[in-house]
Amino acid sequence: MKELEYLEIINNTLGDSSLLGDDCAFLQEFNIYVTQDTLVENVHFDLDTTTACELGQKAVSVNLSDLASSLAKPMYITISLSLPKNTNTDFVRDFYTGVNAICNEYNVKVAGGDLTGSKEVVVSVCAIGKKIFDVNVSRHYSKPDEVIVVTGTHGDSAGGLRLLSQGRRENDSLIKKHLLPSPKISEAMELAAVLQKEQIKKLAIMDTSDGLGDAIYKLSKGCGYVFDINYENIPVSSELKRTFPEEYKDLVMWGGEDFELLFTVEESIFDKLDKRKFFRIGRVSDKKISDCENQDFGAEFQEKSFKHFGE
Amino acid sequence: MKELEYLEIINNTLGDSSLLGDDCAFLQEFNIYVTQDTLVENVHFDLDTTTACELGQKAVSVNLSDLASSLAKPMYITISLSLPKNTNTDFVRDFYTGVNAICNEYNVKVAGGDLTGSKEVVVSVCAIGKKIFDVNVSRHYSKPDEVIVVTGTHGDSAGGLRLLSQGRRENDSLIKKHLLPSPKISEAMELAAVLQKEQIKKLAIMDTSDGLGDAIYKLSKGCGYVFDINYENIPVSSELKRTFPEEYKDLVMWGGEDFELLFTVEESIFDKLDKRKFFRIGRVSDKKISDCENQDFGAEFQEKSFKHFGE
Repeated sequence: MKELEYLEIINNTLGDSSLLGDDCAFLQEFNIYVTQDTLVENVHFDLDTTTACELGQKAVSVNLSDLASSLAKPMYITISLSLPKNTNTDFVRDFYTGVNAICNEYNVKVAGGDLTGSKEVVVSVCAIGKKIFDVNVSRHYSKPDEVIVVTGTHGDSAGGLRLLSQGRRENDSLIKKHLLPSPKISEAMELAAVLQKEQIKKLAIMDTSDGLGDAIYKLSKGCGYVFDINYENIPVSSELKRTFPEEYKDLVMWGGEDFELLFTVEESIFDKLDKRKFFRIGRVSDKKISDCENQDFGAEFQEKSFKHFGE
Repeated sequence: MKELEYLEIINNTLGDSSLLGDDCAFLQEFNIYVTQDTLVENVHFDLDTTTACELGQKAVSVNLSDLASSLAKPMYITISLSLPKNTNTDFVRDFYTGVNAICNEYNVKVAGGDLTGSKEVVVSVCAIGKKIFDVNVSRHYSKPDEVIVVTGTHGDSAGGLRLLSQGRRENDSLIKKHLLPSPKISEAMELAAVLQKEQIKKLAIMDTSDGLGDAIYKLSKGCGYVFDINYENIPVSSELKRTFPEEYKDLVMWGGEDFELLFTVEESIFDKLDKRKFFRIGRVSDKKISDCENQDFGAEFQEKSFKHFGE
């Protein structure tokens, strides 16, 4: 549990940690959300299976996904790219071609950054989004009886990664979901518009970058209520089931890097959402976590969540 | 010249590179400046000679220095810290103790970030500052006859680094300037207040993080006029002269990492500045670079500037 230990130390060491803990921090004075996510070679990607262009797109996408989970409109990014000495110029061109493509798609501008040497390729992106809806987000806002919703299928990215690591190339759609995840910006904007119209000011939401199971655990812990999940309602792609008939359930819950959204809303709000894009996977119960017999229910979740340190 | 090649590729690949090129990008819509700088183990620091606490402070300081050179008031940072698997928790605590110290000193809040695994320690900080003065900055604004000004001594940081690499600890002040550089925020605010009072709307300025020579070269190239430097007027600490009597001149010009400010202003403005903090080192000539016989005058500057890729 080294990562959690580190995070606790950070919270305890900083005099003011009030802006930490969610996918993005909201800077009220400027009406912006900021986030920073880093991809490290051989931790988050492998250059044998990821092109520079895909890496450029993905490094931006994972940050835009954080903005999506804050219902923020993506505006600007800065990029720090660290490269081994012998990197050829084609790599830089291809990387920025990928950055440019995704930035054009979401109308985002590159506002500088940094270029340094390093042993491994490291990409750190900071993204800035504008708050355009009067809805506050947090991992603490779920309430009993709300519907638990996801924006799409899970497990595909992890399935794609597994195929790549096995040298198998037979299923392009899974591999593509791993290499070129698509941030759920339009879904976020659609959801926010409905909430604003219905004058809902608070939303419990996060992205599922560290796994659907991890996100369920964190939203549940955030509000203190047990989440009742109907596993058979979690959308799963037929490609994933066909390619991994034995293991797909595990990939769905714990695979990570799907960059979908998980949130909870009242039934009446869910009814107003487009059912081709938003899927009900369960309901927030009125059972307090603190009343559960098994106080260790979180252990499995913590154990299986995406590990940045490969513990 | 790999770094310059890379930068040219980035500019040519991005559809819109209008926000690149200065120490910070100004995001007009939000009235903020943003910058991102990364420190990589064994490129920018050595953990044998740098403590985690010093690293935390320095990673923030180098970004605040960029905000200083934009005359921006530092407000928020995000931090991405990449750590090898076996890093102990004391390192994380000490690192954030350093971050906390420098943030408290400049009233800056930590607004999130990221924690990942890696082979080497990599710290990437994004800093956000507020534009509080009605003065625009750029590397292109110098005009003939303006006075060239620096905020302090140069070469000390490089001298400190040389002492550390030789295992010498006899001069604490040089080593301290290397390990704990101090961003010139108060000098920047003082300068900006004078400019605003005198209704000067444009300032050519940058920090000297990549070396005083590099900064002189860039401001000169930015405006197209030759900079006449009086080398004997460049402030040099007595410690540096005493410790490196033979080599100090080279360290002053090309050492880098002093994080002072270099700017040009009209004589009448310079007269209003505090002479204990601002030092005149030359004058912008009316000679166009393009009229110089030796068109290669920049080669030495490019050759000697701080090399992130150790070319």
